[in-house]
Amino acid sequence: MHDFDPGCVEEPYATLARTFPGTETYPPEDFRTEWGPIFHRGRLDGTARVLVIGQDPAAHEAVVRRILVGTAGRRFQGFLAKLGIETSYVMVNTYLYSVYGQQAGNAHANDPDIALHRHAWLDALTANNPIEAVVSLGRLADTAFRTWRETPSGQAYGGAYEHILHPTYPDSAASSGTPRAVAMAKMLTGWNAALDALHPVVTPDTPVALAHYGEDLAPTDLGDIPEGDLPAGLPTWMRGGESWASRQGATAEEKRATIMVQIPLSQRPF
Amino acid sequence: MHDFDPGCVEEPYATLARTFPGTETYPPEDFRTEWGPIFHRGRLDGTARVLVIGQDPAAHEAVVRRILVGTAGRRFQGFLAKLGIETSYVMVNTYLYSVYGQQAGNAHANDPDIALHRHAWLDALTANNPIEAVVSLGRLADTAFRTWRETPSGQAYGGAYEHILHPTYPDSAASSGTPRAVAMAKMLTGWNAALDALHPVVTPDTPVALAHYGEDLAPTDLGDIPEGDLPAGLPTWMRGGESWASRQGATAEEKRATIMVQIPLSQRPF
Repeated sequence: MHDFDPGCVEEPYATLARTFPGTETYPPEDFRTEWGPIFHRGRLDGTARVLVIGQDPAAHEAVVRRILVGTAGRRFQGFLAKLGIETSYVMVNTYLYSVYGQQAGNAHANDPDIALHRHAWLDALTANNPIEAVVSLGRLADTAFRTWRETPSGQAYGGAYEHILHPTYPDSAASSGTPRAVAMAKMLTGWNAALDALHPVVTPDTPVALAHYGEDLAPTDLGDIPEGDLPAGLPTWMRGGESWASRQGATAEEKRATIMVQIPLSQRPF
Repeated sequence: MHDFDPGCVEEPYATLARTFPGTETYPPEDFRTEWGPIFHRGRLDGTARVLVIGQDPAAHEAVVRRILVGTAGRRFQGFLAKLGIETSYVMVNTYLYSVYGQQAGNAHANDPDIALHRHAWLDALTANNPIEAVVSLGRLADTAFRTWRETPSGQAYGGAYEHILHPTYPDSAASSGTPRAVAMAKMLTGWNAALDALHPVVTPDTPVALAHYGEDLAPTDLGDIPEGDLPAGLPTWMRGGESWASRQGATAEEKRATIMVQIPLSQRPF
């Protein structure tokens, strides 16, 4: 028996998936609009207690059509597991489309046209789920939450809120010169503080004693993306621990136009 | 406003999408089970009047997760248009997984274990839709229909049936030495005969006068894959007329493990 996520099929989400903004709102020079919008991951059936705000979809997400399924998703899935949250979550992103360079993402942090559709999602999710905590991943997600917090629906939200460093912060920091180990320890210190704040207020699916992260992520700190989070029939390796999608091309244009999907060596039944 | 296909979310299809057979039924040496099963395209809401049986999914289908979206799909969409059928159809394949070589496909034409799940789909579709005609594309699909025809549900089916050459027959015939023009004319002669048989018995969505094919496919003979046939948010070029997915690799193993997705040049907004 296989589980799957039906996606945005019920209202109010079906209408949101029919009325997404396009290039008139997301300029193609700043967003990879050509890969289409990607809306969510997790429960849309009214059972979510944790609402997660991420940043933007990447290559794996463009194929799976769910957000936070790659490295960032597995790291954050482990965070949810430390709260005893196995299925009662829903995730949306700051941006429906992948940013074309982090600077482009930063430039639209306060874009009111982009915020309109995002606010409609946050309104719908908080109105239709018993949300106990919102967790934003990274600075842009924090800005997105704070902007929504100023709206009437945002003001009415009475649950907890935690802003933590994005799950791939150690990797981006390392590529900007900060030692990866330092950046990782910094991220996990913040994640531990967020766990301290959230563990007492989030109702777990399965109660777990609070276990902090160490200085680095252990293999057991990663969470598996549940089969029930992906569309029907997607192969197991698409939610596994090994990378399988990458942008490829000899020129910037070719790379922007190309995603290579390659089954990890260990996952080939041939 | 964008339309999309919700997929297998309602019963009896949700259960079918949860209970698909795996490698115990589809041997990986004969089927590309590693890409996951792909179930259908078209209406699952009880409004289908034409039931189409194709052969197996290819590279484009592995990404879109709907069948008959590539060249074969656009050619056959044009056939449906000549019947005035714009939305009232549903398509399933003989095989849930892509065959690894046509010979492998042929070897399993009469496999009773594979037939079990396929019969469950055909039973569900004919029981829940006012099917007026079944059209099978190619010899394996014809065998699939005839095998089902011997079951109680198949015996109860009282609509029309047409078996036509597969929409990519001209291409496969050309690669086996038959001139493409000869193969194309042969296919279209058969398609015209099937149109003659079906046009009087299929209730159109929009009535159209019967217009036969010529000796070759004209550009206007191709149909567009409707936005409402694909999952939410998929980009327009994924249902366009230009190829955008291909298996790549220097070795047979690499090629089997790799699908390159590349946006056609004319469809890049950058």
